[in-house]
Amino acid sequence: MKDLLLAIDIGGTQFRLALISDREMVARVRRATEREGGASWMIRQIIDEGRRLLTEASAPVKACGIGFGGPVDFHNQRIVRSHHVSGWEDVALPDVLREAFGIPCIVDNDANAAALGEFHYGAGQGATHMVYYTVSTGIGGGIVLDGRLYRGKRGRAGEVGHTPIFADSDVICSCGNKGCLEAYCSGLSIARRAREALKEANRLSAAENVTTARDVFSAAGSDPLMKRIVDDTAKYLGASIGGLHNLLDLDVVVIGGGVSQAGEWFIEAVERSARSFMLDPDEHGPQIVASSLGDDSVLWGAARLTQELRRE
Amino acid sequence: MKDLLLAIDIGGTQFRLALISDREMVARVRRATEREGGASWMIRQIIDEGRRLLTEASAPVKACGIGFGGPVDFHNQRIVRSHHVSGWEDVALPDVLREAFGIPCIVDNDANAAALGEFHYGAGQGATHMVYYTVSTGIGGGIVLDGRLYRGKRGRAGEVGHTPIFADSDVICSCGNKGCLEAYCSGLSIARRAREALKEANRLSAAENVTTARDVFSAAGSDPLMKRIVDDTAKYLGASIGGLHNLLDLDVVVIGGGVSQAGEWFIEAVERSARSFMLDPDEHGPQIVASSLGDDSVLWGAARLTQELRRE
Repeated sequence: MKDLLLAIDIGGTQFRLALISDREMVARVRRATEREGGASWMIRQIIDEGRRLLTEASAPVKACGIGFGGPVDFHNQRIVRSHHVSGWEDVALPDVLREAFGIPCIVDNDANAAALGEFHYGAGQGATHMVYYTVSTGIGGGIVLDGRLYRGKRGRAGEVGHTPIFADSDVICSCGNKGCLEAYCSGLSIARRAREALKEANRLSAAENVTTARDVFSAAGSDPLMKRIVDDTAKYLGASIGGLHNLLDLDVVVIGGGVSQAGEWFIEAVERSARSFMLDPDEHGPQIVASSLGDDSVLWGAARLTQELRRE
Repeated sequence: MKDLLLAIDIGGTQFRLALISDREMVARVRRATEREGGASWMIRQIIDEGRRLLTEASAPVKACGIGFGGPVDFHNQRIVRSHHVSGWEDVALPDVLREAFGIPCIVDNDANAAALGEFHYGAGQGATHMVYYTVSTGIGGGIVLDGRLYRGKRGRAGEVGHTPIFADSDVICSCGNKGCLEAYCSGLSIARRAREALKEANRLSAAENVTTARDVFSAAGSDPLMKRIVDDTAKYLGASIGGLHNLLDLDVVVIGGGVSQAGEWFIEAVERSARSFMLDPDEHGPQIVASSLGDDSVLWGAARLTQELRRE
């Protein structure tokens, strides 16, 4: 009977808990976030659900790892804030859960956790130098170098969505800066660019019908204008990935998040673009592949994160 | 009497050798490259000058480090090629010099060596995570993470000049790709952009007089058009640096090479731009500073490189 780990994924619209044994997820729960309840409501729910899982566990649960949807001060093991739910400012979540569960706990942001998950259990297995992109509402990422998550000076490394791809752009990103990859290629930005292009073409009612990136991808098969938006998205993502490879000389780039689910043809278009920006692409790579764990990458990575408890 | 190290800097127009003791350069020679002589001529010269230094040395010379101006296969300790001098293809230079000098030798590309030099002896001292840019004819770089030079899968990491800053540019870089930082901000590119702007303004004779970036910087004090070229250069370099900080969460960025010598005001303009692209610039940095070792950063770094011999 193998020891278990408790993995927690705290996102803006839902939170999830799972018990993980070696390479198997043996139990899981998912709850919708009630934003008005704020952090304290969420923490109570997490403690309730976590205790239930611990009680029902068929083997000892040794530790708890948490992937959090927002900036985390990893060195001090505190949540900085949530972009979605109030009350998370400067919360020492691992301390709170250690007291509630009686096991050691560790937290990192969800993109770092997802990168760890893909690296050890998903599409990045076997790599040494990997970058993970999550392209959904926004664009986040995590960087694994020499087999270890790279966090940088303040634990804030990996923000692949906030490298400028247009150095004198006037397009303002969600972060307030201009020209970031996220300002062009996040789900929200793809939909915005599509609406802008449709309005410019005087197709106002079509513009009104575009609310998500999914609408744009669906229309791209029959609408040349939407096809161009998708092609540009692949080109820009490829520019970011190609440049990052020239910087970091990678084995593999893993793309997760909703936009990566558009289909294999989209990942291939991103790869073609990326290779056109690489100094010396060769048959050895880097490979550019879709996430293989999908929504579960954060949970797997959160479990893996507990290995870093031993180093503390 | 302290042990000495032999440091060699092999560039396109000159090569230099030095004896280095602890934090002191105790002897040095510099020779112009005769391109027509090719690699074999250069290697003979390096062996002659190196033997002379070894003979005259006042203490035992323990090892030799080499910074080479072109791609190096670090893992296999071979020169890939020179961009300037023929005959360097796949040369196992450390083997050749080990035989000639009777001491262990190690080679890396000159940008990596310069990064090591600045990190340990120059403007990067005290940092943990540093990126070095050398902005001269081209743009090269080196990345130090967690106190160690980061080389990536094939030893080709650090190409800060070849990240796209315009993702759908038609401007072709020296590398053959489009939109790279180097295609806008290298010395050659600054001069080209200035000539293009002058021609567009119908100032043809002024355009003919611009041959180097130095001409552009000199004219910027009195010519608004040249001032705009310089301002854009600072903006684009800042975009690259700001984006890199969001990726790698750095303590310090060191800028070397001829263009960095334009003056403190230029470094400050680059810093202002860089901060406008950072997610969360704060009083802790990253600092953006000019190289403090100037032309000697490669020699200092080459000496430091010998510490990696012990790991082999």
